[in-house]
Amino acid sequence: MSEVTCDISVSVDGFAAGPNQTLEEPFGDGDVERVHRWMFEGREDNVSEVEAITAAGAFIMGRNMFSPGRGEWDLDWKGYWGEEPPYHAPVFVLTHHPREPVEMQGGTTYTFVTDGIESALEQARAAAGDRNVSIAGGAATVNQYVAAGLIDELRLHVAPILLGAGERVFEGVPNLALQSMAGRHTDLVTHLTCRFSR
Amino acid sequence: MSEVTCDISVSVDGFAAGPNQTLEEPFGDGDVERVHRWMFEGREDNVSEVEAITAAGAFIMGRNMFSPGRGEWDLDWKGYWGEEPPYHAPVFVLTHHPREPVEMQGGTTYTFVTDGIESALEQARAAAGDRNVSIAGGAATVNQYVAAGLIDELRLHVAPILLGAGERVFEGVPNLALQSMAGRHTDLVTHLTCRFSR
Repeated sequence: MSEVTCDISVSVDGFAAGPNQTLEEPFGDGDVERVHRWMFEGREDNVSEVEAITAAGAFIMGRNMFSPGRGEWDLDWKGYWGEEPPYHAPVFVLTHHPREPVEMQGGTTYTFVTDGIESALEQARAAAGDRNVSIAGGAATVNQYVAAGLIDELRLHVAPILLGAGERVFEGVPNLALQSMAGRHTDLVTHLTCRFSR
Repeated sequence: MSEVTCDISVSVDGFAAGPNQTLEEPFGDGDVERVHRWMFEGREDNVSEVEAITAAGAFIMGRNMFSPGRGEWDLDWKGYWGEEPPYHAPVFVLTHHPREPVEMQGGTTYTFVTDGIESALEQARAAAGDRNVSIAGGAATVNQYVAAGLIDELRLHVAPILLGAGERVFEGVPNLALQSMAGRHTDLVTHLTCRFSR
């Protein structure tokens, strides 16, 4: 059976984004580019981890990862990733505001889900077939899936910065032993792979 | 010049202790023994990290790490570590309640410091001579030293459990790029060594 995975890059104090997220600064304040530097400057040292991020057959993300807007949809907005997003697969966006699906180039389709994380997972599983479903972020979405016990493997990519504030991974999660953990360090990041029991 | 180091074992969500710390459960609720398992069951895989923990020439710890009591001193209480504590060096305990120094067997002396973290560090530096000063914990004490920019090297030992609540490392710390980070994984723990610029 396919698995539910999650990749998220965080500061060493666990923030996936800084405070004050805006259109111009989608990850917020605080030199937060440093959290993602490993994927670009360190790409050669982290080939398997980078490839694993987009290997899933379907993705789920929170509204705030998709859009800087927070209320009714601006229908001109089609995500942060341009005409051909790097997902190349169905992407399910959690939102309280209904919207028709948006088809992008290269196989990415954005479907907007208004009836909760379990419904989104069900739809993503159906779309992914034998492949994995990936929880793409942000932190609030990851935390909801962790708290609901729906993630098999969470891959934290820990970068050498303290953000001190913002959107934190592992807020509101339960006391829970991991089945196992693995770790690998490269110049710009330490990868922590957390397996949860199901 | 000697350095200020810090070793602290944490859950993957960053808690050094669970909620409800008591005499019987000094690390609080939540199967928190799992956070420290690597030092005992995994000792052979982590020899250098275990040895590094007690290599300093003087130690600083918070009152709550030394004692389950929170108010006036119970003078019969001499720490959690028995007659011959594993420090074998001067230990400075941060507290709001004055107390005479307590000399233990094997070189450990507990000195109680009531005038703040900088005073404790100054005293510990003088006691350590050419050797390092180690911030021994708990989380609140570590966070104060991180926030004050007084730590050179923080060694996080990350264990495969979510605690979900308790005493968290990196609360109230500033936005700050690390000078560097190193990582090493063994069966029961991932060691993250964080270097701060001074």
